[in-house]
Amino acid sequence: MRRLRVTVTAALAAVLSIPCGLSAQASPTRQAADHSTTDRWEKAFRAIPDPGRMRRYMERLAARPHHVGSEYDKQNAEWILERFRAWGLDAKIERFDVLFPTPERRVVEMVEPTRFRAKLREPALKADPTSRQQKEQLPTYNAYSGDGDVTAPLVYVNYGLPDDYERLERLGVSVEGKIVIVKYGRSWRGVKPKVAAEHGAVGCIIYSDPRDDGFFGGDVFPKGPMRPDFGVQRGSVMDITQHPGDPLTPGVGATEGVQRQPLEGNPSIQRIPVQPISYGDAQPLLAALGGPLAPPEWRGALPLPYHVGAGPAKVHLAVQSNWDVKPVYDVIARIEGSEYPDEWIVRGNHHDAWVNGAEDPVSGQVALLEEARALGELLHQGWRPRRTIIYAAWDGEEPMLLGSTEWVEQHADELRKHAVAYINSDTNGRGYLRASGSHTLQHFINEVAASIPDPESGLSVLQRRRLAAIARGSKAERTRLRHGGDVRIGALGSGSDFTGFIDHLGVASLNLGFGGEDQGGIYHSIYDDIYWFMHFSDSDFAYGRAMAQTVGTAVIRLADAEVLPYRFTDLAQTVGTYVKQLKELVETQRAKALETNQELDEGVFAATTDPRRPTVAPARAVIPPHLNFAPLDNAVDALTRSAKRYQEARKAARSGGTGGAAGGARPSAVELKRLNELLIQSERRLTDPDGLPGRPWYRHMVYAPGEYSGYGAKTLPGVREAIELKRYDRADAEIVRAAKVLEAEAALVDEAAGMLEDSGGGAR
Amino acid sequence: MRRLRVTVTAALAAVLSIPCGLSAQASPTRQAADHSTTDRWEKAFRAIPDPGRMRRYMERLAARPHHVGSEYDKQNAEWILERFRAWGLDAKIERFDVLFPTPERRVVEMVEPTRFRAKLREPALKADPTSRQQKEQLPTYNAYSGDGDVTAPLVYVNYGLPDDYERLERLGVSVEGKIVIVKYGRSWRGVKPKVAAEHGAVGCIIYSDPRDDGFFGGDVFPKGPMRPDFGVQRGSVMDITQHPGDPLTPGVGATEGVQRQPLEGNPSIQRIPVQPISYGDAQPLLAALGGPLAPPEWRGALPLPYHVGAGPAKVHLAVQSNWDVKPVYDVIARIEGSEYPDEWIVRGNHHDAWVNGAEDPVSGQVALLEEARALGELLHQGWRPRRTIIYAAWDGEEPMLLGSTEWVEQHADELRKHAVAYINSDTNGRGYLRASGSHTLQHFINEVAASIPDPESGLSVLQRRRLAAIARGSKAERTRLRHGGDVRIGALGSGSDFTGFIDHLGVASLNLGFGGEDQGGIYHSIYDDIYWFMHFSDSDFAYGRAMAQTVGTAVIRLADAEVLPYRFTDLAQTVGTYVKQLKELVETQRAKALETNQELDEGVFAATTDPRRPTVAPARAVIPPHLNFAPLDNAVDALTRSAKRYQEARKAARSGGTGGAAGGARPSAVELKRLNELLIQSERRLTDPDGLPGRPWYRHMVYAPGEYSGYGAKTLPGVREAIELKRYDRADAEIVRAAKVLEAEAALVDEAAGMLEDSGGGAR
Repeated sequence: MRRLRVTVTAALAAVLSIPCGLSAQASPTRQAADHSTTDRWEKAFRAIPDPGRMRRYMERLAARPHHVGSEYDKQNAEWILERFRAWGLDAKIERFDVLFPTPERRVVEMVEPTRFRAKLREPALKADPTSRQQKEQLPTYNAYSGDGDVTAPLVYVNYGLPDDYERLERLGVSVEGKIVIVKYGRSWRGVKPKVAAEHGAVGCIIYSDPRDDGFFGGDVFPKGPMRPDFGVQRGSVMDITQHPGDPLTPGVGATEGVQRQPLEGNPSIQRIPVQPISYGDAQPLLAALGGPLAPPEWRGALPLPYHVGAGPAKVHLAVQSNWDVKPVYDVIARIEGSEYPDEWIVRGNHHDAWVNGAEDPVSGQVALLEEARALGELLHQGWRPRRTIIYAAWDGEEPMLLGSTEWVEQHADELRKHAVAYINSDTNGRGYLRASGSHTLQHFINEVAASIPDPESGLSVLQRRRLAAIARGSKAERTRLRHGGDVRIGALGSGSDFTGFIDHLGVASLNLGFGGEDQGGIYHSIYDDIYWFMHFSDSDFAYGRAMAQTVGTAVIRLADAEVLPYRFTDLAQTVGTYVKQLKELVETQRAKALETNQELDEGVFAATTDPRRPTVAPARAVIPPHLNFAPLDNAVDALTRSAKRYQEARKAARSGGTGGAAGGARPSAVELKRLNELLIQSERRLTDPDGLPGRPWYRHMVYAPGEYSGYGAKTLPGVREAIELKRYDRADAEIVRAAKVLEAEAALVDEAAGMLEDSGGGAR
Repeated sequence: MRRLRVTVTAALAAVLSIPCGLSAQASPTRQAADHSTTDRWEKAFRAIPDPGRMRRYMERLAARPHHVGSEYDKQNAEWILERFRAWGLDAKIERFDVLFPTPERRVVEMVEPTRFRAKLREPALKADPTSRQQKEQLPTYNAYSGDGDVTAPLVYVNYGLPDDYERLERLGVSVEGKIVIVKYGRSWRGVKPKVAAEHGAVGCIIYSDPRDDGFFGGDVFPKGPMRPDFGVQRGSVMDITQHPGDPLTPGVGATEGVQRQPLEGNPSIQRIPVQPISYGDAQPLLAALGGPLAPPEWRGALPLPYHVGAGPAKVHLAVQSNWDVKPVYDVIARIEGSEYPDEWIVRGNHHDAWVNGAEDPVSGQVALLEEARALGELLHQGWRPRRTIIYAAWDGEEPMLLGSTEWVEQHADELRKHAVAYINSDTNGRGYLRASGSHTLQHFINEVAASIPDPESGLSVLQRRRLAAIARGSKAERTRLRHGGDVRIGALGSGSDFTGFIDHLGVASLNLGFGGEDQGGIYHSIYDDIYWFMHFSDSDFAYGRAMAQTVGTAVIRLADAEVLPYRFTDLAQTVGTYVKQLKELVETQRAKALETNQELDEGVFAATTDPRRPTVAPARAVIPPHLNFAPLDNAVDALTRSAKRYQEARKAARSGGTGGAAGGARPSAVELKRLNELLIQSERRLTDPDGLPGRPWYRHMVYAPGEYSGYGAKTLPGVREAIELKRYDRADAEIVRAAKVLEAEAALVDEAAGMLEDSGGGAR
């Protein structure tokens, strides 16, 4: 990217003085916006983020509970707005009015064989001042639980995933008419009550097993960072199968006067009551279960034998919410682009929390604020970004991406036209850069990470991350990395504010954050606060600073790039891998189904059941049909070819430039503008306006959150879920649809390559 | 085997009336000892074992504690002797006098940061009558612990294996001068204090983590079968690196007047004090540890974060034993062979226990007793075994195979000449036949298992076991089994009375027992008693009966076989697998060493250490040299060829026989006798009189207990341990030694094949 910028600078010098909203005299280096200049601005930027300031921001933002609808949530939004403005950015608050239930009644009590009433309350701790702000704290609850009052025997179902119910059937236990108790983890929490209800359960209790984020992982709070016995994970269980955002205004911004869906029967609300509890509250319930012993891999860290039930424990569960509409306040700041004001780089992190939220989201928000301040400082020093930069402090992320989704829906048309990329963060900690996102940006984020010093190791962030990947990688992956391959980025599922951008609109996105060195068990509890963060996380904000440097550098490079730095070979290679996985998935399913049926024929299950602990043989398996993957193979081949062609054209432009006088004509300013306008659409090409089967809001054909995994990404989701959910009848059609967007992408990339070749005078 | 018996019967009819100790008139079927006759005797045998009697034997034998040196141990031996005699067997007691330490002083107390004194005592339980016999119970202790009185900081070292100490070093923690606390499991317990002392520890505490046999596995005793909070595993920690058996009389029977080694500096006794404790006693100690958090895979099921220390917990450990010599009483019964009295089938199970020992060893002993009674009954009905059968109820197994080892050493010369096979059992439960042993007997035990009905499934024991192997097996293993391959048997390590037979003398051995359906946590505790067994194990003795039927059938077939049923192709195939594993082991070590060194060069370890939780980079790895496996490859090839030749010769003898008039001469009685005498030596050929490096008592070159795993088998142990322990300098020489015994075996098998071919008139 940056090298091309060097080579075409001379030819472009004329167009760099396009008028912009900022005075020309503040831009002394404008006429020589070459590599070293960009480098200089980047370096100037990276010198600015200040750990001391981040600490003060955190002390301000996390001082009191600031959930949606709270007084302090609004005050924080206004304080952020003030900061943005003070730093010279053009900022405003955009308000949306959204459905946000809060608890009116919560009961979890065991009525048989003994009586026990769950506390459902996190105790204040002497050492931890903000834990005592009990008046302002939201009670422990799962937002968008169904209202209900049920009494039924209890069944333990591990993490509550579809596979867990299959395993339970093998044990001869049904959840029909029962209340299930399941663990947090392995899936997004909203999947748990949904799957429970699909299996006939009448209520769902979710608890945090100490195996997952309690004492098994270390000392508990306040002695250590892990979840104490009565710590509870709040959280939304809105059914995002349909869409995130306000359940009453799907697809449109929840502004005044917009048509709202009825609350009654709203598909985003769970059908059964759901209540989160602590392991302190869970222990008596689990200890009172009889029935078969849970499979070893289901057992947690509580000091008891995990039985599955059903019963003899019988539980009374009652949940009643106040179904109010509440305001959310997105704080939006804008730096107008000097050259391409209609090309937008969007950067966001939410500001609302479940309680004080020092880690989630303030640790990410303080980096965003320092980036904004530093960009303001650069502007003051004379820097003008070529493209428009938008900074967003989202509200209402916790209830289910309300602020970002409503904003995305409200501005959908503009964003489809203008958005180059969205860069998200959420929480931040010590350790390694974790990046997920559009694979067209994989090489870009590797290059950015190479420019950032790691605070602990003395290496660059990329070097450290690469060495960690070598330490953990397979042999093949180690070899690839040692031969200079980029550190791979993961695919995006959901769980933070990138969802609307990438999944609904098809805006190339990245989700960034540091982590991996500190564990914690305070997620969504009252203990996620300043005391915890200053004792057990990035207490000197060294990684807060690294985060601001990383994201800010990415924003500046995107904003100032001559040619937008998408690399399609990475996309083609990654999608090729996904197709390979899908083929293997079907083959694995087929082999497994054939094996199951053969074992049924051989009497394996009958022979291996223990009369004292009988198990039920599985049902006869459906043998997957052979699928026609040819359309996907052809599409991946086409994309691979066009991506290579584009990459060679870019390379030719570079080498043509380095020689100075060599080569033909350079792309003109107009050509460059056309090229970038085309490139902006590249991620949009990966969407289909009809969306995924049964969930049209999700339009991206390469990435989506899983219907039954929630946050976890499903890649080529239409095809993959047809196979995973054994809806083979629709798999071939989904292969064709996925192939179609990839063919469209290949055509776009070919067109872009052609533009470069024509302007570069290359002899093809 | 049995088919051959049919074909050669006519030719052999003349020699079958060899005079024997039993009157001819009691043997009406003697002259027609053909297939159907043998079958009829087997069937008659299998109808005899009676669950009701087994229950009564258990009620007698487990009624009181009966450890070595106790009054009831002697009484049980005398009672067994009486039974054997009452059933018509020629029985006697053989007594040996052996070193058997019992505890005089045991202290485990925490002196810092708080004071806590471990109970070291298993409480009597109301529900469980024999748990109250506290006067007769041995206290909780580890026999052959070093005497000592030490006070030092505590360090937690997982299971106390060599790898665990390597991991601990990576955490920057040393055990030099410390007391270690380690978990039972993953290795034989005696390895734990040995390795601890090698690393400089001054004391060793071993506890039973509830993850391994406590509440994690189910309800605890007396509600369920698992270990309750103050249940303790007693056990010997005699260092069996040198040899099992009496530490004062290595290599010879501990009879009166034999020269005894001094106690002082005896290498079989641990160098540091060792004490076993319950998880109830361990919890306060572990909870008081600081320092790094233990790696996740080290953490158990106690409700606390597992730290490794060292300290701040400081512990006072004192152990003092009474080093008395005590008598052990082996009860030996004999049925003289009618035809080959000098060919012995030996069958044993110990009778001593740590406390009441209903499961260990009485569940196995009651099957042995019913076998003996049933054989007596057959004798009464007129059956006369061709070969001599010896039944042994061993004493002193628990302290470290004292009774069987002294007997083997005492009778070594006779056994080397006469022993055809040794069949061992120890404990027995519900489920699947578990067989380990000499691979020459793999096919034989498969055939036996095919004749035994499984009490639960309605299938044969073999069918059930085969289907379970299919359910659990790899794809390749499933295919092999589905194509009629035998269920594989495991290699023998140590841990029961087969050790002297196979490892010291080279007697082909089998260790048999049913299990897999019931878990338990009462091993070596006062709760291994009748109450536990009748609630949580084979309470109707259905599997006790199956066990007696299985072993008795094996004994009868071995005793009556025309040609001893060793199958050398199984040995050749299995040893070939072992050689393959060794090659892979070196390659894996080499790849790992190269990778470690490359990562050191690249700075991976420096890059991935967390300054708040620093780790230490590993030392530069030694790259394994390339070894010359050719001698082993050649030896396996030779054995494979000769085994095939032998098998074909056997087949030819069979087909020659089935045709009746077809084929040439049959082996004469003299030829058969010579053949069997040769075959008896086949397992002996696998031994080397110099024994394994550093432990000459262990003479078998194919199977041995591991120097650092204890009970776990090491196959081709001289070579394997040279590689595993990175003593590469001796690996090539060990390959040659192992190859030599395999070549000798091949020569023996060739000779046997030649004998068959000559006698069968086959044209080779």
